[in-house]
Order: sequence, then C-alpha cells, then structure tokens
Amino acid sequence: MKTLTDADVDRLLPMKDAILVMEGAFRAKAEGHLVSPPRFYVRFSRGTLAFTVGGDDVGGSAVGFRVYNTFPGAKEDGGVHPDRTQVTMVFDAGSGALQGTILGTRLGVLRTSAIGGTALKYLANPAAERIGFIGSGLQAKAQLDAAVSVLSLKGLRVFSPTPAHRQEFARRAAEKYGLAARAVDTAREAAENSDVVICSTDSARPVIEAEWIRPGTHVTTMGSKTTSEHEIGPAVAQQADVVASDSPAQLSAYSEPHILQGTGAWTRVIDLADIVSGRKTGRTAAGQRTLFLSEGLAGTEVLLAAELLRRA
Amino acid sequence: MKTLTDADVDRLLPMKDAILVMEGAFRAKAEGHLVSPPRFYVRFSRGTLAFTVGGDDVGGSAVGFRVYNTFPGAKEDGGVHPDRTQVTMVFDAGSGALQGTILGTRLGVLRTSAIGGTALKYLANPAAERIGFIGSGLQAKAQLDAAVSVLSLKGLRVFSPTPAHRQEFARRAAEKYGLAARAVDTAREAAENSDVVICSTDSARPVIEAEWIRPGTHVTTMGSKTTSEHEIGPAVAQQADVVASDSPAQLSAYSEPHILQGTGAWTRVIDLADIVSGRKTGRTAAGQRTLFLSEGLAGTEVLLAAELLRRA
Repeated sequence: MKTLTDADVDRLLPMKDAILVMEGAFRAKAEGHLVSPPRFYVRFSRGTLAFTVGGDDVGGSAVGFRVYNTFPGAKEDGGVHPDRTQVTMVFDAGSGALQGTILGTRLGVLRTSAIGGTALKYLANPAAERIGFIGSGLQAKAQLDAAVSVLSLKGLRVFSPTPAHRQEFARRAAEKYGLAARAVDTAREAAENSDVVICSTDSARPVIEAEWIRPGTHVTTMGSKTTSEHEIGPAVAQQADVVASDSPAQLSAYSEPHILQGTGAWTRVIDLADIVSGRKTGRTAAGQRTLFLSEGLAGTEVLLAAELLRRA
Repeated sequence: MKTLTDADVDRLLPMKDAILVMEGAFRAKAEGHLVSPPRFYVRFSRGTLAFTVGGDDVGGSAVGFRVYNTFPGAKEDGGVHPDRTQVTMVFDAGSGALQGTILGTRLGVLRTSAIGGTALKYLANPAAERIGFIGSGLQAKAQLDAAVSVLSLKGLRVFSPTPAHRQEFARRAAEKYGLAARAVDTAREAAENSDVVICSTDSARPVIEAEWIRPGTHVTTMGSKTTSEHEIGPAVAQQADVVASDSPAQLSAYSEPHILQGTGAWTRVIDLADIVSGRKTGRTAAGQRTLFLSEGLAGTEVLLAAELLRRA
C-alpha cells in the first residue's frame, strides 16, 4: 500500500494539475455525483478529531476521508512533525479497497489553494495584472502559487501586521515568480491598487473596507465569516456583481449565522460548481466586482489524493 | 510510523490481555472519560464508509478511529484482501501525533470478542462448564476464544444451518481447546443443555425460545435486535434476572425501535461498565438467568490498537 508524505505532494502534483483536478471535482458536483457532506467532529478533553469525508464515486472512482486534529501538537509550534497530525486515505469506489495514504499538511493546503485558483480562473478579470494580499501566512503563500497558475500577474502588494513576515512574502514572490512585489504598511494600500485581492487572515474583524474595492476587482476571503467573527464586512458582498462559494451548503451549516445571512447578498450566492460547469454565468464584464467565499469543499482532498496516488 | 496487519494482531495480543484492556475501557466509561459517540456513516453509490471514533484521553491517552466499509470488495467473497478494507488509526491524546495504523479485519473481531469475554466474566455463572453456540461463523469462533479465557469450559454444542460449518466448528473447539464438542441438529439441543448460550447469527427471526433457557444460564446475543429483525425475542429478556449491554445508548440510536423497547426489560438494561466498575451488581446467585446485548462499544478498538502498537 502506498504512503506519501509532504515532499511527495509537492513533487508529484504541480498547481496547474491540481487546479485541473479541482475543476473536475466542481463539474462532478454540478452533475450531482460529488459526495461532500458536512464535516464530522469528535471532541476529546485536549482536542478535536475532525473528519471530512467524500469523493466522486462515478467520475473519479475514489472515495475516502481526511482527518486532522486540534490537539496541542497539531498547532504550528506544537513540536510534532506535520506528517504526524493529518491523514488522508483513498479507497477504490468500486471495491472499497484501500488505495493509499497521504500523511502531512501539504495536501490540505494544496486543496484550498487549488480551489482558490479555480475561483480566480472563473471569476477574476482574465486581464488582471496586480494582486494584493492581506495576510502573508501559509495559506496566502499557497494562494499566490495558485494565482500565478491562472493569471498573468505582474505586480504584488502585501500587508500583514508583522513587517518581517510581509517583507519575506514579497521577497519570495519576486524571487519565485519575478513579480514586482512590495510589502506595504496598510491593508488599504494592498487592496485599492489591485485587480485581485486575497484576504487570508485569522482576523475576527474586517480587514478591508468596501470603498477600497474598485470596479473590476475580484476579492477572495479565506477567513472567518460568522456574525461575531468575520474577515470582510457585508458591504463588500453587497457591492459585488457576482458572489460565489465552493460550498454554499456549508455557509448555512455553522453553529452561528453567516455574516451575509439576512443581507441582499445572501440569496445571490452562486455555487462555483455551477459556474465551472457552465450552468450559471460568473463575470460577464471587465468592470464587474466579484467575490469568492472560500469554504473548503469536502471530498476534494480525496480526489487530489487519488491523483497523487496514481502518479506515485 | 508503525503499521500492523492481521497477523500482528493475532501474534501480539492474546485474548486474555485483550479482555484486560476491555475491562479498563469499561472502567473508563464508568468514570466518564471514555469517548464513544454514535457511529458516523457516509453513503456513496456503491457502498458506505462507516467511522467509529473514540478513545480514552485520560486513562489510556489514546484517541482515534476505525473506518470500515460496505463496498462490494469488503464482503466475504469480494476478492479484496482483508487488509485493504478496514483501517484503525491511533493518535496520542496529548499531542495529537499519529502513533500508528492497524490494517485488516482482525482487530474489529478481537474487539467484539473481548467485549463478549468481559460480559461472560461478569455475568455468567463462574462454575459454567457447558457452552452452546447458535451460529458458527467468524464471530462465533472468536466468542469461543473469549469464553475459554474466562470460564473453565468442558463441553460444547453447536448448531448452525449448514452441517459442514457446525461440524468444522466443533472439530476446531475439540482440537484447539480440548472440549467435548458436538455439532447438533437443532438450536434447541445447543441451547437447553448449556450454562452459556451464544447467539451469533445474521438471522432476522428468533433462533432460540425463552423456555429452552434454564435458570442459571447466561445468554449473549450478537445479532440484530430491532423490531423487524431480531435474533432473540423479548421473552428471553423478560425472564432474565439481569440484562446488560456494552452500550445502552446505542440501543436507542437505531433508526428503528429496539425489540425490547416498550417491554418491562427495556428499563432494566444495565451498562456493563457499571458492573465491571462495581457501581451496580450483575449476577448475585448461581440460579439467575443473565442476558448480554452485544452492541460493539465505540472507542474500544482504539484502546486495543494502542496496546498493540505499544507491544509492536
């Protein structure tokens, strides 16, 4: 039985290919054969085991699950090697036979960024050249990797509260992708000079204002989206021409109401699957504002894992 | 990371030791720190993935899950090697670090039989010498292994519909344990001449009658227990002096009512954990009838798996 780790994930599946797998997952979802129920949590005294189960047992012939946990060692400074806290397993959808295991945190990050890349491909202005980041962590880095796979970017601005972090992010963007990349001192500078804005923070309060987002701009929000904790306010959604999510069902499944619930934007949320499959239209003009609410659709890790195992 | 298979399970953990682990699990349950929520199922078009999650994060310091499936290959004649359809994973309850994986079907069988052995130890007459089996399959064989670990058995009778199967079961019991073992032509012959009766069938209709069960006899039922499908009828429970289960909570958690619901026996069901921990009394006299409703308490596989990984 095959067992892959983080190094294998990075080596075997370039971002462009991961985005192709994700587009297939969204088409399967639109056709009704992606299985992706809400997450399942079991709480223990020192942490929680979280299961996302799913797959595509018609098109992809792979089912399975990812399990991650919130125990002390799973935190960034927990001292436990990343291969030891997250597991994804893939079973053949015909026979139920275990195909293999992926250990580590890279697959989850790749999954989220490949969904983000798919969203940019179908929602952002294809002529977008300037990207702005609010937040410079692990997820932000992966979103950049995805963005350069689907857009011809030239410039980048990044803001995050710690100067050393945003400077390191800009340096990496310049070195790795040849972008004219600059760390800036405010979120506003990053947002209002960009065609694409990626909010990837753990902030409980809005990090951008609606008036910073000019016509034509795409915004992706990766962070919290509940009434009490949200990375963007409802006005950003209300002024957007298109609001999409990878999992509209998940938006209603939190224990607390979603920040958009009760606003005019709530009933306008489109399933990204319907845009990818051509059932609904996304952006129709360069001057439109678009917004992507990233949720982390279940079942998609399993399809990426199945592709990794095929290549290994 | 350690990965064990069926051969390791059989080699590393003798039944007597598995029963000790299970007694520890029941004490943890009585003390309120065994985590064992109801099973979690995700249905796909060709089968279901089933998760039992749990553990003891105070005493045993092990949490985790077992996943099994009902896809075609997981059935007995499915042609897929048993190591490829069931997985148990153990995480350190302090750090969340993955400790190891057990592949295969033996652990699930060992878990069920070790629970059965614990039930016999605390419910059956310690002087019991004659055991009767209705059913001669994989689970029945494992229940025999458990029974000889806790009782000084001398004689065995076994009935199951296929003569070759019951004869093979009797032959194995004689060879492996030196029992005076006999395959009989009716369930009645197996039941009414025994101090312990183990029903381990997939029958949808009762396989024993209450009048066959003499005073002093212990009965264990492993099979279906719902209103529409049940291996024993309510009269067997109603005449029992003590009715216990490893998971009284699970009895109420089926989509269909339990066969005992609405009968006088329903409110008398005792948690085996309370008997093992001394909080409640089980059998108090040799002439009492006792009944054990085997449910398969979640979290217990993880504790057995943790003990296996310690020994490996």
